[in-house]
Amino acid sequence: MSRPIITLTTDFGHGSAYVAQMKGVILSMNPEVNVVDVTHDIPPQDIRAGAQTLSDLFDWYPEGAIHVAVVDPGVGTSRNIVYVNAGGRHFIAPDNGLLSRVIRQHEPQQQVFLTNSEYWLGDVSSTFHGRDIMAPAAAHLSLGLDPEKLGEGAEKLNRLSWPEIHLENCSIQGTIISFDSFGNLITDITAQTLFEASAKNPMSIHCGHHEIQNLVKTYGTQPPGSLVALIGSSHFLELAVVNGNAAHVLGVDVGEKITVTW
Amino acid sequence: MSRPIITLTTDFGHGSAYVAQMKGVILSMNPEVNVVDVTHDIPPQDIRAGAQTLSDLFDWYPEGAIHVAVVDPGVGTSRNIVYVNAGGRHFIAPDNGLLSRVIRQHEPQQQVFLTNSEYWLGDVSSTFHGRDIMAPAAAHLSLGLDPEKLGEGAEKLNRLSWPEIHLENCSIQGTIISFDSFGNLITDITAQTLFEASAKNPMSIHCGHHEIQNLVKTYGTQPPGSLVALIGSSHFLELAVVNGNAAHVLGVDVGEKITVTW
Amino acid sequence: MSRPIITLTTDFGHGSAYVAQMKGVILSMNPEVNVVDVTHDIPPQDIRAGAQTLSDLFDWYPEGAIHVAVVDPGVGTSRNIVYVNAGGRHFIAPDNGLLSRVIRQHEPQQQVFLTNSEYWLGDVSSTFHGRDIMAPAAAHLSLGLDPEKLGEGAEKLNRLSWPEIHLENCSIQGTIISFDSFGNLITDITAQTLFEASAKNPMSIHCGHHEIQNLVKTYGTQPPGSLVALIGSSHFLELAVVNGNAAHVLGVDVGEKITVTW
Repeated sequence: MSRPIITLTTDFGHGSAYVAQMKGVILSMNPEVNVVDVTHDIPPQDIRAGAQTLSDLFDWYPEGAIHVAVVDPGVGTSRNIVYVNAGGRHFIAPDNGLLSRVIRQHEPQQQVFLTNSEYWLGDVSSTFHGRDIMAPAAAHLSLGLDPEKLGEGAEKLNRLSWPEIHLENCSIQGTIISFDSFGNLITDITAQTLFEASAKNPMSIHCGHHEIQNLVKTYGTQPPGSLVALIGSSHFLELAVVNGNAAHVLGVDVGEKITVTW
Repeated sequence: MSRPIITLTTDFGHGSAYVAQMKGVILSMNPEVNVVDVTHDIPPQDIRAGAQTLSDLFDWYPEGAIHVAVVDPGVGTSRNIVYVNAGGRHFIAPDNGLLSRVIRQHEPQQQVFLTNSEYWLGDVSSTFHGRDIMAPAAAHLSLGLDPEKLGEGAEKLNRLSWPEIHLENCSIQGTIISFDSFGNLITDITAQTLFEASAKNPMSIHCGHHEIQNLVKTYGTQPPGSLVALIGSSHFLELAVVNGNAAHVLGVDVGEKITVTW
Repeated sequence: MSRPIITLTTDFGHGSAYVAQMKGVILSMNPEVNVVDVTHDIPPQDIRAGAQTLSDLFDWYPEGAIHVAVVDPGVGTSRNIVYVNAGGRHFIAPDNGLLSRVIRQHEPQQQVFLTNSEYWLGDVSSTFHGRDIMAPAAAHLSLGLDPEKLGEGAEKLNRLSWPEIHLENCSIQGTIISFDSFGNLITDITAQTLFEASAKNPMSIHCGHHEIQNLVKTYGTQPPGSLVALIGSSHFLELAVVNGNAAHVLGVDVGEKITVTW
C-alpha cells in the first residue's frame, strides 16, 4: 500500500509550534504518513480564505488523501467537528463553513460529526482541537479506520454564502475571490461560462476605474507593466500586471466586482 | 521498523538555503528519514526563544524522535555541541542553553559532547556546524548509531535561567514567556499551580494597566474584542483577545509580569 | 531502492496553493516521493536569485535527486522547459537562465527540452507549467523514466551572465552576490582564489565606505556589533556583523563591489 497523505491547512502561522504539535501527534500514531503543509498563513480566523484555499488544491491530490483544515475561532464551544468524504477525498474540519467551497464542488458522499472520543487524544484541551481531536482522527483514518466510527452521521453542514455571478445578454458580473502571491486577481467567472456567453465576441473587462480589452493567452505576451486579463491555471478569469502586482496597481481587494461586456 | 523522524528548529529564516543544505546532508546519509520542519523563524541568535519552542513541542513526538536545534551565535568558537537523551527523545544542539527548558522538564538520561569527528562531514566549516556536525550526527543516530559513540560524556550542561513564579497567600506573580501567531500571551503559571493555590476562589488577573475578572473556558465564549484569561492548550494561564491580538492590544512583550489575586 | 527526492524552488510564496497543487500532482503519480521544499520565497520573477539559490544547495543532495525550479515569467510563451543532468543531479526548469549557476559549476552531461506531451498532464494551462509539465515530468523521472524520453536533445541553454572577479597584483575586486537571513553578505571571491593571490599577506577589505582589516575565523570571536570578514560555509568571502545584520548596517545590496587589497 502506498504511503498515506495528510495535508494541513491552518491559520497558525508558518513555523508555529502548534503545527509542530499536530505533526507530532500524527507521526506518533502513524510514522508512515506523508504530512504535507499546504499553508499555515490563512489570515487568523478567516474561514472564507481557508475555504477558498482548500477548494483550490484538493482536486490535485489522489483519492484517499486526508485534508485537515483548522481555522477554528469557535474551538471549545458547541460547534461541531466534521468528517466529510467529497469526491473520494477525506476532509476533517470544524463545521463552521470551512468546507463550504469543497462541498459546493463535490456533493458529500458521507458526513460524520466527530463525537466518538475513543479516537481523540486522552486529554482534550478547550482551545486546540486541531491537535487533540482532528489530528488523531486523521491519523486513525490513515491507518484504515472506517470513517463511520468517528461519530454520528451529520445531517446538515454549515455553509457560508458566496457571491453568485450575474449573467445578462451582453455581460457577466463577477467578483474577485482571491489573489495569489504575485498579486494576480482571481475571479469567480469560469472560462466555460465566459466563452459560452460571449460567443467569441470581443470583450471589455471593467474593474474599478480600470478597463482591459480582450484576453491574452499568458502573462509574457505583453510588455512588463501591462494590465492584462486571461484565463488562469484553474480556469477562472484573472487580472494580472505583467511582472508586476495587480492587487497593488489596482488597489482592489477580495470582494471587488468585475464586469465583462461584449 | 518505522520511519525515523528528525525535526529541525533553527533561526535561519524560512526558505533559507542553509536549511535545504542540512536536509540534503541528512537525506544523503539516510533517505528514509522523515525530516520535519518545526520552525526556521526563531529570531536570529535568540537562544531563549529557541529553548521555549523546543520545550513546547518535543513531548508530542514519539520516543526515538531526533530533535536538532540550531541557534548558534558561538558557532566555531570553543562552545560544545551536545547530544542529550531526555524523556526518551534525542536532542542535538549547541551547548549554549538552547536545551535549558527541555532538561528542566525531563532530567537528562544521557549527555554526550560531539567530539568524535568520525561522525562529522569530512570538511567542517567554522560557521555552519548545523550542517557539518549536527546534521550528520542526527543522520547517524537515525541509522541506529549508539549515541555514546558521538563523543565524550558531558558532565554539566549550560543552562539559562528563567524567571520563577512567586506564590503568596492570595496571589501568584508570573511572567509572559511567549506569544503565538494569534498574539495570545502565554505565561509560566500552570493550571495546576493556579487552581491549587486559589482553591477555586474568584480571581483577578492584572497585566500592565489591564485587569481581567476570572477565567473563561475558551475564546469563543465571549464577544469578539473581549480581553480574556484562560488555560491554554499546554495547561498554562494565557491572555487572549477574542478574534484579536492580545500582544498588540496590551502592548506587552515576553518578560512582562502578570499577577493573579483571589 | 531508497525513497526518491524531489526538491522544489519557486517564487510562488510560502503557503501558496500553487505549491500545494504541484505536490498533489507529484504525490498522485508517485506517493513514495520525498518532496523537499527548498524555498518558495524567491522574489517574484527574479531568475538570478533563483539561480543562486539552486547553486547553493544542489551539491548537498545525493546523486539521483531531482531538483525542480520554477521562476517562470515567460510561462506559456515560446521559451522551452529543460531537463539537465549536471553532476549526477537532475534538474527541471524553464530555459530562461535559471540553471545558469548550476551548469557553470558542473558541465551538463545531458540536456533535453520537455517537448513530449506524453509526460505532461492531460490538460495543460498557459500559465502554470510548473504544475502541468514540470511536476509530472519530475514524477516520471522519480519512477525511473529515462530522461531522454522527455523530449528532444537541447543544443544550447540560455545563460545569464554574472560579474567576474578582477584579480590584480595586490588586489581582487569581487561582487556581493547574495545575502542570507542574518544579513551576512556573500561575495563571489572564493577562499582558494583569495589565499593563493594574497600569499598570506595581511589584507584590507573595502565595501562602500567601510573598511575591514583581516579575516576572522568565525563570528563569535569578536564582540557583538563588530563588522567582520570571514570565509563562509560555502568557501566564499563574506561580510558579517556579529549578532547583527551587515546588509542593514552597510546599507548595501546584491551587486555591490568589494575590494580586497594586500
